[in-house]
Amino acid sequence: FSTEPYTRGERGGGGVARVLQNGNVFEKAGVNLSVVYGEMPESALNAATERGADRVGGKLKPGQKVPFFACGLSSVMHPKNPHCPTMHFNYRYFETETGAWWFGGGTDITPSYLDRDDMKHFHGTYKDVCDKYDPEWYGKFKKWADKYFLIQHRQETRGLGGIFFDDFNTEDPETHLKFSTECLGAVAKAYVPILEKNKDKEFTDEQKQWQLVRRGRYVEFNLVYDRGTVFGLKMLSSGVGRIESILMSLPENAKWLYSHEPEEGSPEAWHRASHL
Amino acid sequence: FSTEPYTRGERGGGGVARVLQNGNVFEKAGVNLSVVYGEMPESALNAATERGADRVGGKLKPGQKVPFFACGLSSVMHPKNPHCPTMHFNYRYFETETGAWWFGGGTDITPSYLDRDDMKHFHGTYKDVCDKYDPEWYGKFKKWADKYFLIQHRQETRGLGGIFFDDFNTEDPETHLKFSTECLGAVAKAYVPILEKNKDKEFTDEQKQWQLVRRGRYVEFNLVYDRGTVFGLKMLSSGVGRIESILMSLPENAKWLYSHEPEEGSPEAWHRASHL
Repeated sequence: FSTEPYTRGERGGGGVARVLQNGNVFEKAGVNLSVVYGEMPESALNAATERGADRVGGKLKPGQKVPFFACGLSSVMHPKNPHCPTMHFNYRYFETETGAWWFGGGTDITPSYLDRDDMKHFHGTYKDVCDKYDPEWYGKFKKWADKYFLIQHRQETRGLGGIFFDDFNTEDPETHLKFSTECLGAVAKAYVPILEKNKDKEFTDEQKQWQLVRRGRYVEFNLVYDRGTVFGLKMLSSGVGRIESILMSLPENAKWLYSHEPEEGSPEAWHRASHL
Repeated sequence: FSTEPYTRGERGGGGVARVLQNGNVFEKAGVNLSVVYGEMPESALNAATERGADRVGGKLKPGQKVPFFACGLSSVMHPKNPHCPTMHFNYRYFETETGAWWFGGGTDITPSYLDRDDMKHFHGTYKDVCDKYDPEWYGKFKKWADKYFLIQHRQETRGLGGIFFDDFNTEDPETHLKFSTECLGAVAKAYVPILEKNKDKEFTDEQKQWQLVRRGRYVEFNLVYDRGTVFGLKMLSSGVGRIESILMSLPENAKWLYSHEPEEGSPEAWHRASHL
């Protein structure tokens, strides 16, 4: 594990990044606590919130920037064993000088090989958390994750979802904070038993290769669509941010094989079939 | 080598992709001849030309699309040996129904390790081609490549440039076609001697790893900034295109190491130093 606290100086913020590389269970695993404040140009605002400029009361003037404060905790864990899924969570809070505030985030899972029991355990854990607050939240946030974690140019989901929400401020802030904290607290319960069950399973070179191909898809999603990553890259162009923390989510290794299609009916082909 | 001719049906186009994977010299090498026609939404137009909507006479109405025709030939060669640079070229022609037309393209080189003589040979070959047309073109197009092939979020160039131009229609179309064809013809002269010289050099695991880290940077540039890739991904969202041809440019393998900085003065650190 390496730990890097970092600051951003006057108009910036700071954070702590902890990243593990080449461990026993994980190829790469990182946690990043981040506080950012400054001014968002419209391109960053569009990445920061699903509602974009509408969130702060309508279209910005050309060149107008929006003063904001944001903090968030995020993590991506890429295990070594292809039978262990990758797990990602992010919980964040935004507020702008114009008085808008919202919570966003979620936890989602990306297997290379499908184990239906594992997926039921993962999703079930989050259903339990959501149901304590509102019986409609789980269904809504699960659908949102399926829509959000879509690699649009492939019309293929990054993984098997979980929960995702954005622009969330229907309750009082304390309830939102409590909910986000409980979601965060449920990560271990949702993920650790899956790791324990699969981390020592044997695997072939072909299975490892398939995992690396799926990691290539992870890179495609994160660099092109992931709101946090795109927001981070846009803010960096405004001189705010730390590249290594933003791209911490990328796997250590990824592969692109030209026109590689798993055989129909093979264990690799599950992601083409209908979802859980 | 695998060859896939493909068509896009009624509102599409077609092309031929030839991709070699895991050869003797190349890890992955592809050539893609592509013809596309249809309608560009503004997001695709902004990716298709540096001048964006200005190119077709000003701002588009919301939802307005621009009928266009485009054809291009592109190639990326990723060698196995870390002492051999990656080479990329793309030459393309666009026209819109509104009567605008332009040529774009270039050839550029991306070494993992710097050999000044090789780089002089590569750039010198393109200087000779340009100088036959206009003594100012080489300087202009070299600067343009340095600006275009910039990984903005890292403030780091993808490689060591070459030539690049876009929105180019100052001469008559025949002269432009002839110039693009000669640039294409110069690829072998510019690149093959470098391959011949370096392809059998010995290399260490560390050197291979450094090559894969540089390939991660290649992925970052192509997915986030490369005009052809971003245009292709946007068009795919409009139902036109072929994902495997668009992402043919990605390396077979790429690596992201957290906070990995080559030691100052090491052969890996050249890319931080001032450019040629």
